[in-house]
Amino acid sequence: MIEVKAFAAYDAETPLRPFEFERKDLAPHQIQIEILFSGVCHSDIHTARSEWGGANYPVVPGHEIVGRIVNVGSEVTAFKVGELAGVGCFVDSCRHCASCKEGEEQYCEEGMTGTYNSFERGTDIPTYGGYSTSISVDEKYALHISDNLDLAGVAPLLCAGITTYSPLRHLNVGKGHKVAVLGLGGLGHMAVKFAASFGAEVTMLSTSPSKEADAKKLGAHNFALTTDPEVMASLANSFDFIVNTISAKHEYDTYLNLLNKNGTMIVLGVPEIPSVAPAMSLIWKRRSIMGSLIGGIKETQEMLDYCAEHNITSDVEVINMQYINEAYDRMEKSDVKYRFVIDMASMKN
Amino acid sequence: MIEVKAFAAYDAETPLRPFEFERKDLAPHQIQIEILFSGVCHSDIHTARSEWGGANYPVVPGHEIVGRIVNVGSEVTAFKVGELAGVGCFVDSCRHCASCKEGEEQYCEEGMTGTYNSFERGTDIPTYGGYSTSISVDEKYALHISDNLDLAGVAPLLCAGITTYSPLRHLNVGKGHKVAVLGLGGLGHMAVKFAASFGAEVTMLSTSPSKEADAKKLGAHNFALTTDPEVMASLANSFDFIVNTISAKHEYDTYLNLLNKNGTMIVLGVPEIPSVAPAMSLIWKRRSIMGSLIGGIKETQEMLDYCAEHNITSDVEVINMQYINEAYDRMEKSDVKYRFVIDMASMKN
Repeated sequence: MIEVKAFAAYDAETPLRPFEFERKDLAPHQIQIEILFSGVCHSDIHTARSEWGGANYPVVPGHEIVGRIVNVGSEVTAFKVGELAGVGCFVDSCRHCASCKEGEEQYCEEGMTGTYNSFERGTDIPTYGGYSTSISVDEKYALHISDNLDLAGVAPLLCAGITTYSPLRHLNVGKGHKVAVLGLGGLGHMAVKFAASFGAEVTMLSTSPSKEADAKKLGAHNFALTTDPEVMASLANSFDFIVNTISAKHEYDTYLNLLNKNGTMIVLGVPEIPSVAPAMSLIWKRRSIMGSLIGGIKETQEMLDYCAEHNITSDVEVINMQYINEAYDRMEKSDVKYRFVIDMASMKN
Repeated sequence: MIEVKAFAAYDAETPLRPFEFERKDLAPHQIQIEILFSGVCHSDIHTARSEWGGANYPVVPGHEIVGRIVNVGSEVTAFKVGELAGVGCFVDSCRHCASCKEGEEQYCEEGMTGTYNSFERGTDIPTYGGYSTSISVDEKYALHISDNLDLAGVAPLLCAGITTYSPLRHLNVGKGHKVAVLGLGGLGHMAVKFAASFGAEVTMLSTSPSKEADAKKLGAHNFALTTDPEVMASLANSFDFIVNTISAKHEYDTYLNLLNKNGTMIVLGVPEIPSVAPAMSLIWKRRSIMGSLIGGIKETQEMLDYCAEHNITSDVEVINMQYINEAYDRMEKSDVKYRFVIDMASMKN
């Protein structure tokens, strides 16, 4: 067995605190990763606090994991000890449904196995995530990580990165397109970076004038204040895509009219109170609202390779594991640019 | 001037009654059509009763018009006296925006000119629709009608037909696709016919078992009772497209989960109380909700030619003009299979 130190939520109310557990000895197809950095996603908070229901305590959150391989199983062929590797939102899937065969394991018909708050496939062994010193994963569900990028900034690519990269690629967003981004957080700042990198003209939409400088530093070409009715009127029918990363309550209709004919609002956030979808706003310009869920292993690797080639990482604030509860509180106030990443060396203190 | 007999709504409350008016003498690019049949669309009721606001009384409804050409302007080249011709939901548009240039005049950036309750472009002359003995229209906004089809059944193709044909073609629906149709009215029955004709496997979704025989007669391969939880569970993730023609209050989420990965709900009805669009239902399978508005002249002609080739018409109940108010009352109760069509010969009685 592999002894692991971690931080866990023991229930919905109390702060996260230290937790020790054992991971099984390495299976022939598994690699063991010493975790170096673990990103902190808003889903971690939702799950730790059972806001989505169904938390199986103790919960060890974390699904933006990067680290170094310290051991490989006897049948591993794609990874070597000493290399960097990453793990994202899932560690397994059924492997035989149409989606799995297409390399879109996130849409597995039998349900993917979450990196945390799930059970190892076909067992009652809970999965524990990246707020821990070590993780073992089937090599088919691990990612190769380049040595050339800032490793802390790579961690959030495993969720925030692929969640924005995948729909932009699926819809062939690029040169000649006008893309608006709604919400400048973990997802939004990556949407700006990717859309700009793919050649689109990017506009940050925000209620706060203070976001303009930040958005432009990230690569946005334009900034529009959504509280200004004249600005909003001037932008009617002007975007091909809106990447909507907002998970606070809001109305899609405020933004649908900014889409041009055949325009698509890509919905990535999950507001607790869902927005209405007024049919007339969709019908009048053949507009669409489309959801999208992270990405498959193949596309996540493609995204990581693209980032290595184009020097793209997430903008992060590196913290110690012991700071996690303060980090959660600050995330609730959107007080982070743009992702907390835990330096797991802090677990050795 | 051309003397025209019609039926009009004089206000929102009173029944439609006779109305006489004059249409201008034919312009060089116009054709004059003696109207033979005029379909009755639910939009007619909404406008006559000012339920959408903005009715400019008297309103002469009717935008599913077929008839015979009795006169052509000096510069008309595409139509001849004695031929059949049709007019749909619009009689003009700006002609220079991107949508007009692409032949999608229904999405004209300056707004199409409605066949009724609008104004002739650049004037204050009201447009009067098909509940009348004669209409004059620029040949660019008229359609060629085959002699081979039942003419009364052709009239509804100009709105109900193209409204369902266009999104199915836009999304390349055909062989290998599973299509569900929601709502068995004017739009729904055409959606069944077109989807089946394009080679898709069509399922009628309905709350009423009595619709099964009708749906199958129209070409549906399957029927599913949406009030049966077991049936609904068995259909989860099974359709590529849902053609949603319901304009009564309903929840999209009841049906979104029936869509497979990448599935699209095509929204054609406009419920007065809009449905919510729960983000998770969209995200979980990369589903979309898309609106669509009638079709352009080019595509409407393509649809009419397709119908002539494949012997497709609308199922209609032919009525006299004088029956229109009873027809409206029956439409409010969905008591029509599936479209009323006015025989304009009744105006000569």
